[in-house]
Parts: sequence; C-alpha cells; structure tokens
Amino acid sequence: MPINVLFSARPERWDTYQAPLHKAFKDNGLEVNLARDIAPEKVDYIVYAPNGDLNDFTPYTNCKAVLSLWAGVEKIVVNQTLTQPLARMVDHGLTQGMIEWVTGHVLRHHLNTDLHVVGQDGVWRDYVPPLAQDRPVTILGLGALGTSCGQALAGLGFPVTGWSRTAKEVEGLTCLHGEDGLTQALQSAEIIVLLLPLTAGTENLINAERMAQMKKGVCLVNPGRGPLIEDEALLAALDNGTVGHATLDVFRVEPLPPEHPYWSHPKVTVTPHIASETRPVTAVQVIAQNIRRGEMGDSFLHLVDRTQGY
Amino acid sequence: MPINVLFSARPERWDTYQAPLHKAFKDNGLEVNLARDIAPEKVDYIVYAPNGDLNDFTPYTNCKAVLSLWAGVEKIVVNQTLTQPLARMVDHGLTQGMIEWVTGHVLRHHLNTDLHVVGQDGVWRDYVPPLAQDRPVTILGLGALGTSCGQALAGLGFPVTGWSRTAKEVEGLTCLHGEDGLTQALQSAEIIVLLLPLTAGTENLINAERMAQMKKGVCLVNPGRGPLIEDEALLAALDNGTVGHATLDVFRVEPLPPEHPYWSHPKVTVTPHIASETRPVTAVQVIAQNIRRGEMGDSFLHLVDRTQGY
Repeated sequence: MPINVLFSARPERWDTYQAPLHKAFKDNGLEVNLARDIAPEKVDYIVYAPNGDLNDFTPYTNCKAVLSLWAGVEKIVVNQTLTQPLARMVDHGLTQGMIEWVTGHVLRHHLNTDLHVVGQDGVWRDYVPPLAQDRPVTILGLGALGTSCGQALAGLGFPVTGWSRTAKEVEGLTCLHGEDGLTQALQSAEIIVLLLPLTAGTENLINAERMAQMKKGVCLVNPGRGPLIEDEALLAALDNGTVGHATLDVFRVEPLPPEHPYWSHPKVTVTPHIASETRPVTAVQVIAQNIRRGEMGDSFLHLVDRTQGY
Repeated sequence: MPINVLFSARPERWDTYQAPLHKAFKDNGLEVNLARDIAPEKVDYIVYAPNGDLNDFTPYTNCKAVLSLWAGVEKIVVNQTLTQPLARMVDHGLTQGMIEWVTGHVLRHHLNTDLHVVGQDGVWRDYVPPLAQDRPVTILGLGALGTSCGQALAGLGFPVTGWSRTAKEVEGLTCLHGEDGLTQALQSAEIIVLLLPLTAGTENLINAERMAQMKKGVCLVNPGRGPLIEDEALLAALDNGTVGHATLDVFRVEPLPPEHPYWSHPKVTVTPHIASETRPVTAVQVIAQNIRRGEMGDSFLHLVDRTQGY
C-alpha cells in the first residue's frame, strides 16, 4: 500500500517539488502516492508551506506528521488545529546559502567594502582594516543556521560569541545565554547577526534599550526574521549614530514597500529576502528521510517544540 | 658580541618596527644591535624594503642574509649588487589579511552584493544566487597567499582550481600547472583571483588572448601585482563583455592617478592596495626567527630563488 503524502503549498511550488520529491522517495525505498488532493482521513503525511490553501488540520485524523518546507515555523505553530507532530525544514542547501550570505556581509562590513564600491572617485583611501581576529562578532541564535554561520566566521578568524535562550555549547564559539548573557553578547560585538526564531519572546528583541547596550557604531545584520527588530527604534539609532549600519534581508511586510524609509536611508542596505532559501534538491531528502523514519517507527528529525514556538 | 642588524626602509617604517623588532629579538634570545647606520662590513643582517636609501649591497661583505619586509620581491631581485641570501616576508598577518580580502570580494561577486549596495531604489530583486558549490573559482598562483586563499574558499564550498608554473599539490584544491593547465584553469572559472609573483614570465600574463579563453562575463580579482594584467586589453575586454567585472587592488602606478580610466569604469572596482599588508607584530617574529636560524647555522626560511625571481 503506498504512503499517502499530501502536498500543500503555493501551486508553483508543486512544479518545483514534484519531480525531486518523487526521486527522493524512490531513492529512500518509499512507495508514495504524492498528490495535492487526497481524502483527508487517508493522508499519512503533509508536506507543508503556510501560504497554500490548507489551514484546518482537523480532518487529517491519521496524519503522522506535518513536514514544513520552511525553516521558520512561526506562521504554522499559531494554527490551533495543528496537533500532529510538526517538523521544521533543516536543509543543507538553506544552511549553506545562509553561511555564504552571512559571511559575505560580515566581511563586507569588516573590510568596509562599500567605501570602495560606492566611492570610485579617484581618491586613494588606503586604510587597511584590522584583522578579523580583532573584530568581535556576535550571533544571536544558535540553531542550525546560527551555529553554522558562527563556525564559518570563527574559521575565518573572527572571535565569535553566540547567544541562545538556553545554555548551549558550540565548538569554536564563546557561548552565552539568558538575560545576562544577552547584555554581554550585545556589548562586546562590532558586528551583530540576528538568526533567532520569531517567537513571543524574540519579537522586538532589538529595541531602543538593547541597541543602547551595543558598541557605538555597531553593524547589524538581519537575515533572520523582520519582527526581531523594532523598526522605529532602529531608524532612530541609525540617525543618532548608536548603530552604524544595518543590512536587512527580512521585513515585517515583504516585499518591503518602495516608500519604506529603509530603502532611502544611507545607513541601511536592504536585500530582498535572498539570504537563503530552501533548495528543492536538498530539501526533498530531508522530507523523504523523515517519512522513512516515521514508517520505521523512529522518531522524527527537527521536531518543533510547540511550547517554545520553534 | 651583539648581532649587527641594519634597518633599511622608509623612515616612517623605523618608527613602526623599532619597538616590535627589539621585543621579538629579546623573545628569541637574540642580543642585537639594531640601527639604521652601521659600518657596512660589520653588518650581519639587513632588514630591508626597497624604497629606502640602500641600493648597493656590495659593501656588506659579511652580511649573512637580507630579510625583506615585503612579500613581493620583484623590485629587490633585479638589484645585481645583491648576492647575499634573500628571504621573502611570509607573514601570518599578511596571509590572514589576504584571506579576508579575497574571501570578501569573491563572496561579493558570488552574491552580487553590489546590486543591492548600489541599487537601493525600492525594487525588490529577489534573485537568490546559486550555492558556492556551483560557482567555480580559479586561483592563479599557489604560493603562501594563493594556497591559503584557495583553501579558505574551498572551506566555504567553492570548487577551487589552483594553477602554478610547476606542479603542486594542495589539499582541497584541483591543482593544474604549466601552459595546458593554465588554459584549463582560465576556461573553467566564473571568478579568477590573481596571486602570482611578478616575474618576466608573469608580466602581462592576463592579456587579450588569455581573457578570450575565460568564461564570458568572468570576474577578475587582482590583489597580486598590477603588471600581471595588460591594462588596455582588460579595458577592451570589459567593454565588449568578455570580462564582467574587475576588482583591482594593485596597479602599475600607485596611487592610481585620478584620471586613470579604471576609476570611472562602471565594471571596475578600484581598491587602494589594501588587500593586505605586512603587520609589524607578526612580521618581526619572522625576521627574528630567521636571524636565530642563521646564528644557529640552520637554513633560512622563505629564501628567494633568484633564477625564478621569487
């Protein structure tokens, strides 16, 4: 009997994912009926993104797990009808893309590349930056993305501090946690990267009070979630010099409206939510692997803790 | 009897190097008379940069070695009076700085960061770049700098090809050599980094013919030596699209004159010879270590092969 896997996401995702999913199921020895329309009570697994049609999980009484195509699940965990196990996407391609984007933009700020990219005016400004070893970086969030980015930066020589809500240990990083740890993590860095999940506890975490704790002129890099930052407070901090520059990839409203002050602010670089994306060829392996585990009676990988929201 | 070490470089270098050198000598157990003026026949070692007053090495009849403060020695090896052993600077700080600059600018081209840094116009261009694993990079030159930069890029996931005149093996890199290898190295890359020494054989290596072998739209990154590139040919290749962008840190004449076409070319980024520099705190260790080796009768490190010019 084939395993019934419902695919629920935007229609164009079906075009992208259908063939790679079939291949991954086959590679994992799974006989699967993959479709966008299956009688709810017959569905074994749901491959899910929250911008499709499915919003009521109640009829899926035999569903063993909901497998998210997205790494961030804040739009899924709020759904009260979702009582099935929920697994996040932890995709090698997504992690790798994030490492590249974060490393590129941290180096951009470290080397002050913009000075040369923007200012090709014939003036020979031969200021050599300090070595990375003298440029402390803090990563807020030590999930799969924060940990990998922190280790890549440490590998290039940056002294990296990682902060997480609860205590963690990551090789090569100075790890801090909790409220006291946050203050220390914010105070010590010249570049701060936000890779926290969006939860009730992290929304607007970067507010006026927190920014006042940072080194004057700090660079903020946010490839995490837009609402981690209180936008009005950031604009004020940029104007008064508390924050030197902000490179922002994520926003409360996307696409960021053309009239938003971030676009025109000389100390803000907007990138259009391109820091990373789930890559079908690697993501389907994660989905197939979790279905195989479910069928073998093994525990699912990357399960979301609904009490924490991520 | 103290060892007589003559310091010959620009006067401002004396201010920078005097104290760190004294400390390094002491740390290495060396009793040294370090000065800018010592009777030539009494000089045991010369710490040297070619932009000081010393151009005739003939009177230094007892000098055991000339220790360069510079990594590139093309302006020193042409001096026919220099018959003493010559050691290049291979400085951890210089190498590390070069890794950071090269990695930063390769990622800048890979991520197309300039599109967002320059174009903050409210348009949401959410094109996600490929992963580094799909962006082949070639490094020309597998000396200390090329090898380290190549390995750093390979560590971030780029497939890196390294080319050198004679056969070499470097872990993590595809190594090519010789004339056939050069053609292959140029053909395969989307980003090419020049880290060759300047010799009669490498001057104008990047000419019209070589550029025609490269992938159309290739990015060139030159933190090596200015004369590696035939400037007129590069400008023509940029204009006809053969080369997509050139990021240049070194030039035939420095500072690059304000009227030079590189400054105003939309596909050229000029950086003012800041990719890396010798850092006194690390460089003095290399000098002290070599003097200690000389006094112990050990062979010198980083000796220049005068027949090859580097």
